Amino acid sequence: MNYTLTQIPERTAKPRHSGFTMVMDKGLSIRQAEDLLSTSADYIDIIKLGWATSFVTPNLQEKLDVYAAAGIPVYFGGTLFEAFVVRKQFDDYRRLLDKYKMTYAEVSDGSIEMDPDDKCEYIRQLATQVTVLSEVGSKDEAKIIPPYKWIKLMQAELQAGAWKVIGEAREGGNVGLFRSSGEVRQGLVEEILTQVPFESIIWEAPQKAQQVWFVKLLGANVNLGNIAPHEVIPLETIRLGLRGDTFTHFLNQSEL
Amino acid sequence: MNYTLTQIPERTAKPRHSGFTMVMDKGLSIRQAEDLLSTSADYIDIIKLGWATSFVTPNLQEKLDVYAAAGIPVYFGGTLFEAFVVRKQFDDYRRLLDKYKMTYAEVSDGSIEMDPDDKCEYIRQLATQVTVLSEVGSKDEAKIIPPYKWIKLMQAELQAGAWKVIGEAREGGNVGLFRSSGEVRQGLVEEILTQVPFESIIWEAPQKAQQVWFVKLLGANVNLGNIAPHEVIPLETIRLGLRGDTFTHFLNQSEL
Amino acid sequence: MNYTLTQIPERTAKPRHSGFTMVMDKGLSIRQAEDLLSTSADYIDIIKLGWATSFVTPNLQEKLDVYAAAGIPVYFGGTLFEAFVVRKQFDDYRRLLDKYKMTYAEVSDGSIEMDPDDKCEYIRQLATQVTVLSEVGSKDEAKIIPPYKWIKLMQAELQAGAWKVIGEAREGGNVGLFRSSGEVRQGLVEEILTQVPFESIIWEAPQKAQQVWFVKLLGANVNLGNIAPHEVIPLETIRLGLRGDTFTHFLNQSEL
Repeated sequence: MNYTLTQIPERTAKPRHSGFTMVMDKGLSIRQAEDLLSTSADYIDIIKLGWATSFVTPNLQEKLDVYAAAGIPVYFGGTLFEAFVVRKQFDDYRRLLDKYKMTYAEVSDGSIEMDPDDKCEYIRQLATQVTVLSEVGSKDEAKIIPPYKWIKLMQAELQAGAWKVIGEAREGGNVGLFRSSGEVRQGLVEEILTQVPFESIIWEAPQKAQQVWFVKLLGANVNLGNIAPHEVIPLETIRLGLRGDTFTHFLNQSEL
Repeated sequence: MNYTLTQIPERTAKPRHSGFTMVMDKGLSIRQAEDLLSTSADYIDIIKLGWATSFVTPNLQEKLDVYAAAGIPVYFGGTLFEAFVVRKQFDDYRRLLDKYKMTYAEVSDGSIEMDPDDKCEYIRQLATQVTVLSEVGSKDEAKIIPPYKWIKLMQAELQAGAWKVIGEAREGGNVGLFRSSGEVRQGLVEEILTQVPFESIIWEAPQKAQQVWFVKLLGANVNLGNIAPHEVIPLETIRLGLRGDTFTHFLNQSEL
Repeated sequence: MNYTLTQIPERTAKPRHSGFTMVMDKGLSIRQAEDLLSTSADYIDIIKLGWATSFVTPNLQEKLDVYAAAGIPVYFGGTLFEAFVVRKQFDDYRRLLDKYKMTYAEVSDGSIEMDPDDKCEYIRQLATQVTVLSEVGSKDEAKIIPPYKWIKLMQAELQAGAWKVIGEAREGGNVGLFRSSGEVRQGLVEEILTQVPFESIIWEAPQKAQQVWFVKLLGANVNLGNIAPHEVIPLETIRLGLRGDTFTHFLNQSEL
């Protein structure tokens, strides 16, 4: 840190299991990736190459190398897994992970119908090869999953071998955990937290108000995902109580 | 492509007449322009220097050189044409196009009142010098043009020598083809398509939901414009059915 | 300028007291800062390192050097001042300004309660060390300050030694001068202008419609702040009547 302030909440250090920030790269150039790392490498725990953008980006291997050199793991968005599965090319997907020496992979069913048992079987198989993140929630805003089912799915997927489960929100933050307005489904989040350990969940929260809501509820070291590259520094200040939105949250109230 | 997936819609190749992507540069630096090309050159068919931003950007010639080296044509936004015309400096505009060796130009009347015959005359004159794109639609959200008139104007402008006609939406996607909420004027688009050839139209569609709507209606190879630099890769995945929004659109339904 | 157009409003030149553009840097990398300067240095009068982002950016000294080399002053967002004050570390803040050789500082009370006399005392003290910008308005959208009080505070703060006063809007443009929808509190602005000199105020106006509103009311040379880096070129065209929104505003109407 560039200077000293009292009453700054303590942040976890890498490798983080809580206080984790997952960033979405949806097509950065090599220089843009380097720029991101130059300001934010310490605050980024993992990078997702959004949905199937890796199919069309010409700089894939070079970008993987840039992130690897910074010690930050990368994974392909779950939509890519689904794109292979829906085409009955799951074995090709496994070979793809090997080809690019991926150490993480996401299993999701945001765009397709998948039997929960089948999903868990994919998790089990991939967990022999990589660290698995599994995602719960549909990308279809009309498809509302009730809280008890979120919990059941998350528990089963962790049980099947997922390292962490991700709560779906998309790049926009307007489905899954959130209403189409971006408003948090507070009851859903609170009910999930009664049954699933805090540190096992990554909450996709691309909008500032969503990040603020989670930091206020769960503290500086909540796991957040789908953070845009240019929002990593702002998010870090929200976690530390150094932006207006959380400014007084971590202060010793008796001293104010 | 970095790997192989079945059932990916076929895309047209450059020089494209359909499946065309027009990107808006509203003041990129040289390095940012290079970054854009490094990830997206294959997917960009033409670049518009938004409205009259070319007046105030200090790097104009250098940027034109960067785009030229990538083989991507560039044109000045129609507002610049209008700025010259409204000042009775049309001859200066023609000299400007020569000075910068521009091979494309836009004729529009989004910010001024112009008689349709006069507009066609400008198209005719400029078509002797460059390839002309003409734009239909007002930037004034209160000025609603009925569908039959859109069609009449588009047909007359193509007849006068425009290579393609552009449907107005602005950078924001909230006028012309769209309501102020960004919602597509579906009846307008569908009526236009009954009379004007699909490949003669470029639809300005800066918002993701608008791009998705057009790809679902007209397929992977619809012509789209006013795409922000960082949305070219995402748009390409939408065209290919590799983002949630169009994920099942191109799949063989009987195999699902 | 790259070419000549008649009827372009005259812009002030640096060092500007009106027609001033303040840009918000909320975590740019060194290269991104260089990119910004390469296109926009002539149009940027001062750069704010947004709120307390300077706490977590690893490139602080280097970035200050880049901006200094371009002759553009920089200051820390007011939230940083407040973070020190609320922790009773005001002396540390003064040392921090010296350590980084800052020549400007902001005094604000957007996130904390502060007695107006105390705020003026901070202004007086800091004015012996740096040029002071003071900000009026709360970051809390529920806290509405009536116009007469804005005026009283602005006058007192200028009297205490503030070089200019800033009207609060945040990065989003949805508090202070604006309703949560982003709409300008027109009556507030107009009433302030009856009592506080035009050139003593910097209006935070991050949204395009807000910038347009101020340029239409106060002309090309209104002082505007919280401009995002990629909006500096677009703003300059709005000031010059070269974007649709202000296109006819500066034209000699009798010639149209």
